[in-house]
Amino acid sequence: MRTADKRVAILSPVAWRTPPRQYGAWETVAGNIAEGLVARGWDVTLFATRDSVTRARLHAVVDKGYEEDCSIDPKVAEYLHISETFEHASEFDIIHSHYDFMALSYTRLVKTPVLTTIHGFSSPRIMPVYEKYRDGYFVSVSNADRAPGLNYLATVYNGIDLSLYPLQQSRGGDLIFLGRVHPDKGVHLAIAVARMSGLPLLIAGIIQDQAYFREQVEPHLDEAIRYIGPVDVPGKNELFGRARALLHLNTIPERFGLVLAEANAAGVPVIAMDLGSCREVIDDGRTGFLVQNVHEAVRALTRLPEIDGGACRKRVHDKFSVDTMVAAYERVYAAVFEMEETRQHEARYCSAI
Amino acid sequence: MRTADKRVAILSPVAWRTPPRQYGAWETVAGNIAEGLVARGWDVTLFATRDSVTRARLHAVVDKGYEEDCSIDPKVAEYLHISETFEHASEFDIIHSHYDFMALSYTRLVKTPVLTTIHGFSSPRIMPVYEKYRDGYFVSVSNADRAPGLNYLATVYNGIDLSLYPLQQSRGGDLIFLGRVHPDKGVHLAIAVARMSGLPLLIAGIIQDQAYFREQVEPHLDEAIRYIGPVDVPGKNELFGRARALLHLNTIPERFGLVLAEANAAGVPVIAMDLGSCREVIDDGRTGFLVQNVHEAVRALTRLPEIDGGACRKRVHDKFSVDTMVAAYERVYAAVFEMEETRQHEARYCSAI
Repeated sequence: MRTADKRVAILSPVAWRTPPRQYGAWETVAGNIAEGLVARGWDVTLFATRDSVTRARLHAVVDKGYEEDCSIDPKVAEYLHISETFEHASEFDIIHSHYDFMALSYTRLVKTPVLTTIHGFSSPRIMPVYEKYRDGYFVSVSNADRAPGLNYLATVYNGIDLSLYPLQQSRGGDLIFLGRVHPDKGVHLAIAVARMSGLPLLIAGIIQDQAYFREQVEPHLDEAIRYIGPVDVPGKNELFGRARALLHLNTIPERFGLVLAEANAAGVPVIAMDLGSCREVIDDGRTGFLVQNVHEAVRALTRLPEIDGGACRKRVHDKFSVDTMVAAYERVYAAVFEMEETRQHEARYCSAI
Repeated sequence: MRTADKRVAILSPVAWRTPPRQYGAWETVAGNIAEGLVARGWDVTLFATRDSVTRARLHAVVDKGYEEDCSIDPKVAEYLHISETFEHASEFDIIHSHYDFMALSYTRLVKTPVLTTIHGFSSPRIMPVYEKYRDGYFVSVSNADRAPGLNYLATVYNGIDLSLYPLQQSRGGDLIFLGRVHPDKGVHLAIAVARMSGLPLLIAGIIQDQAYFREQVEPHLDEAIRYIGPVDVPGKNELFGRARALLHLNTIPERFGLVLAEANAAGVPVIAMDLGSCREVIDDGRTGFLVQNVHEAVRALTRLPEIDGGACRKRVHDKFSVDTMVAAYERVYAAVFEMEETRQHEARYCSAI
């Protein structure tokens, strides 16, 4: 397949800019795919906010991320943005959607095949849409995060831009937490580990659940346990430079866990709850430790010297780099194009007899 | 035009059943149009919740109104329901949408013409969608509730089923308020009028703004001023039977005001704030009084004997009945069919030369 002949539309969410300034995993991955495809010679149009930064052709109808500009109605932005992509469907050989169930509802109104990367099922209440469109083309971001019955073509792990997260030359002394401040992410468990071990903890990320922050995080903040707000890429690297380990004690199954790969890329070991995708992203005993509870997490701290930062980065390079991800998506696209040709051939054949 | 040859899809919202059990103006009107068209011989498919009641063909993918069943995600229901309608577009000669800006986002993906009745602009933030699709076919529900620049084909006043609201044989003694308990609807002003006049007030309707109810309604409730919750059609008639007048002291421009027509149908005079559509629905001095403030409303109470209940009902029959509304929509549909034929003819002509 000569990739340059094929025109790809990448449909990124518009909650945040692509790539996001700070938080925004879905936009990060959609952006990385667009950049990676461009680097490999594809003709790529990125549907994202107008302030997005990309080497692909940018197509935008929403000025800014609705999470970044409260004058924008999220619902209005989503309907305008998604439908705009589908109104231009005939200009593309494939639409690669990162826009959850909402985009699925337009797929049967266009002829262009639509591949959906499912970045996570936010609620069981969205499943009726996936059930209706189950015969679409789907990719999971981990083997753990799959719904039964969907037409999955592959699991493609998220890829990060390793150049953004250089290998730290030495290990720091702090525990770090990086992610949304939300019960799902187990910030309270990270705090418990810090208290039990007597090690300092730096907490970074947006506060998504104010009550949780107020009740289960804020009362514990002091000299040793600090909340520093959301961080951008330089901020993350500063954290990684001070890190003894990243604590990721999620309380629900992780879908992928981009931050685990980012920490590992910088050579930072990860102590993660063994739920969902964590055992796919972390190689237990080599790039971090999988634990079942807070006590195991505390014990794992004593084993951190076993982890080699270079080996952590090497594994991210091999399995979670943009290039690895994009190469995998190229194979998925090829499979979609082949299935579409078969379908069209069958349709022609059926109409001829 | 032989109407029986044309297939109409009526796209009703799925916040409530069609027709709604209690509150739900948009579903009421969409349902009335469907029933009215069936009565006049059209082939009608109503897209609404599965528990809807209609003589049209019912097409449903959402079991219940998302306001009536909290297990349903409103966003999921809307995307599933609206897209289902458009996926069946080729089966219809016209889709008549009552689904606000969301449905507009699908219109360019189908060939079937879509007529949108705009039941109101909920926020300036939704205007970008109307601006994008301004060349669609639009109907306003009052001359007052129009946005500049849209391709309006007509104002068609909402029509009610007069048989549901029989003429009350005698005037009651109470003031009544019927509508959402929300600052927009001026419940606090109705309470002020009751206090100043010394007349009892019955307040009926869903509480849409809990803080408003708690702070500006509840403290005033006593023997004379009572809140009785939402009411169904028999409940409304009971209220109309006790009514001296309906107070509708809206604080923002009314879009149509279905309840004004319902009260008038039962012979109940309406005292309404002169904002938005009220002066189109109420004939000042004949079916009620238009006022500028609470003091004028109190003064208007003394003039209620001038209002003849039969004349109120007669005006509703002439201007706000289902039959009047549906006859108007038939003219609008005919205009759409004609414009579509011209467009197709021009398209053929252009492609031929």
